[in-house]
Amino acid sequence: MNNGIIQWKPIQQYYTCIVDKPKKESKLKGLKSFIAYSITSSLTNIQVSRRYKHFDWLHEQLSAKYVLIPIPPLPEKQVAGRYEEDLIDHRKHILQLWVNKICRHPVLSQSEVWLHFISCTDEKDWKNGKRRAEKDEYIGGAFLNCITVPHQPLDPNNVDMQVERFQRSVKTSEEAMRVMQERMNMFQKVFAGPVKQNWQKMGSAFKTLQQSFEIDETVASRRLTEALAYTASEYHEIGQVFDAHTKNDMEPVLENLYSYKGTVQNVPDIIQVHKQAVQKFRDSEGRLSSAEAEKMKQRIDAMSYTVIAEVQHQTAEKVEDMKSTMGTYLKKQAMFYQEVATKLTSLAARYD
Amino acid sequence: MNNGIIQWKPIQQYYTCIVDKPKKESKLKGLKSFIAYSITSSLTNIQVSRRYKHFDWLHEQLSAKYVLIPIPPLPEKQVAGRYEEDLIDHRKHILQLWVNKICRHPVLSQSEVWLHFISCTDEKDWKNGKRRAEKDEYIGGAFLNCITVPHQPLDPNNVDMQVERFQRSVKTSEEAMRVMQERMNMFQKVFAGPVKQNWQKMGSAFKTLQQSFEIDETVASRRLTEALAYTASEYHEIGQVFDAHTKNDMEPVLENLYSYKGTVQNVPDIIQVHKQAVQKFRDSEGRLSSAEAEKMKQRIDAMSYTVIAEVQHQTAEKVEDMKSTMGTYLKKQAMFYQEVATKLTSLAARYD
Repeated sequence: MNNGIIQWKPIQQYYTCIVDKPKKESKLKGLKSFIAYSITSSLTNIQVSRRYKHFDWLHEQLSAKYVLIPIPPLPEKQVAGRYEEDLIDHRKHILQLWVNKICRHPVLSQSEVWLHFISCTDEKDWKNGKRRAEKDEYIGGAFLNCITVPHQPLDPNNVDMQVERFQRSVKTSEEAMRVMQERMNMFQKVFAGPVKQNWQKMGSAFKTLQQSFEIDETVASRRLTEALAYTASEYHEIGQVFDAHTKNDMEPVLENLYSYKGTVQNVPDIIQVHKQAVQKFRDSEGRLSSAEAEKMKQRIDAMSYTVIAEVQHQTAEKVEDMKSTMGTYLKKQAMFYQEVATKLTSLAARYD
Repeated sequence: MNNGIIQWKPIQQYYTCIVDKPKKESKLKGLKSFIAYSITSSLTNIQVSRRYKHFDWLHEQLSAKYVLIPIPPLPEKQVAGRYEEDLIDHRKHILQLWVNKICRHPVLSQSEVWLHFISCTDEKDWKNGKRRAEKDEYIGGAFLNCITVPHQPLDPNNVDMQVERFQRSVKTSEEAMRVMQERMNMFQKVFAGPVKQNWQKMGSAFKTLQQSFEIDETVASRRLTEALAYTASEYHEIGQVFDAHTKNDMEPVLENLYSYKGTVQNVPDIIQVHKQAVQKFRDSEGRLSSAEAEKMKQRIDAMSYTVIAEVQHQTAEKVEDMKSTMGTYLKKQAMFYQEVATKLTSLAARYD
């Protein structure tokens, strides 16, 4: 409890992890090839090498253990084109977002299986750690036994209200992000497609116009001929700038939206688990001994504390996520339009 | 002749005409309605009122009289939507370009029928002038009798070379302008369509995102909520700016391209007339008395001088036209991108 707000115990030592250097490796004498990512944590400075399937395994472990915590999404599994540079980069970015969200989470960032994942370099240790995680008894409902909550019992109505509010908030932001994703995809298609093409074909037309003035061979047209040649090449360049804008500036937003949406899509299930438990407790009231009832109430409270702390965490995360994602995007967008404006201003001056 | 260059005798007193105030008028007690344009020339400061059909009549007179001068195009005849503001404006602009081209032409700007058109306000005088123009004997080939050319005979090869070069130049610029027209049309469609829509739907998504933060009611999200609301309204506005860009900045270029293309499309016919006359003269050589031959040669020379002077005029016009059309367009384009960049920069600052 902090100023009446229920939250996870804050992270004592905040650390970050860098996902980098995806490289193609092979084993079985080249029969089998795969992409390996390096992960370096600021906690230990140890660099480990992990494949997608390792991430996938870890995701499964975390999902099984923390049923009340929405685990962020990994990049989509893909078979075709998985060695293409753009796609490798895209996956790396999503993995980086994934790792960031784990590092910022007060529970996940301390999780044993995660710490093993980011620090183990020895093959044998790795296998032992894996086996240990797979045998973990404190998963799912049993994880509640690992949680220490304030003694103060919770007001069920207040819990319901907070959960309900969170549900509405998530639904609303999901709707906003769905539209943003859709529109940004269309921006990408239109800018990298017809708009880029239009700039470049216009560039070619300026080139042709220049040639017509060269045929004329008049003195008056000489300066204009140079201006037209310059316009042709800058228009071509601006076409590329539009293309780059869709990749460098829009792609990160889409990756962030993917990550956010993939995280909150677990929310309905989590709320369902909580609701069912509360309902079960209410249904059984009167049929239980007071000792049993007290024990169950404590368990339900632990669950509610967990859910509310997680609601609190996700709500704060959304603020930070959107502030940085949208702020960065608008800055990059501004720079992009500024770049085009600057190019055009310098072009226009040649026609004076 | 000026420095070895054949050109029309320059305009002694340069003047301009303003086409303005298209207004709907009616006659026959409202049974018949039409649009009337006012034309005011800086020569006399007289303001006359003319309908499209008057322009059309004048165009016909000029085309009949000056077969070796490409007469610029009037706006297309249209029936549907001719009282819609956008279309009325569009026609007014094309008429203004038309009038500009007449005013800048050393022969057309002095033409009696034209001077009558821009200065006659009396109904009866107008009809008399019309009749006089329609009875003009110096039209078509006879117009050559009104032309005074240098005594120096022309080298037919040199004439051929200059005509051929002009043909190539016109063909090349027509090709350039065809592509420009096509691409600018596509820019208009894409910017006023999907791109505008994308900005505005993104704006709505920012609004929805803002609502989700309002549901959260956290202190941390308050500043972000304001930033998102502002982003929503500015994105909507940027959508409008894109739309306005296609109208205010691209439309004038399209009108200029229309006017240029419509003018030079008469060039092949003019060259054909000249070529046929030259050919006829060559074919008849030997069959004519020397006096007849000399007279015909003088006539051919008058024609060649006319054609070359006109080539010279059109070539100079193209330089001025393109310099001002493209220079203005690039300036407006730069201002448009600058406006978007400025809006986005001020938006981005709200996320810091």
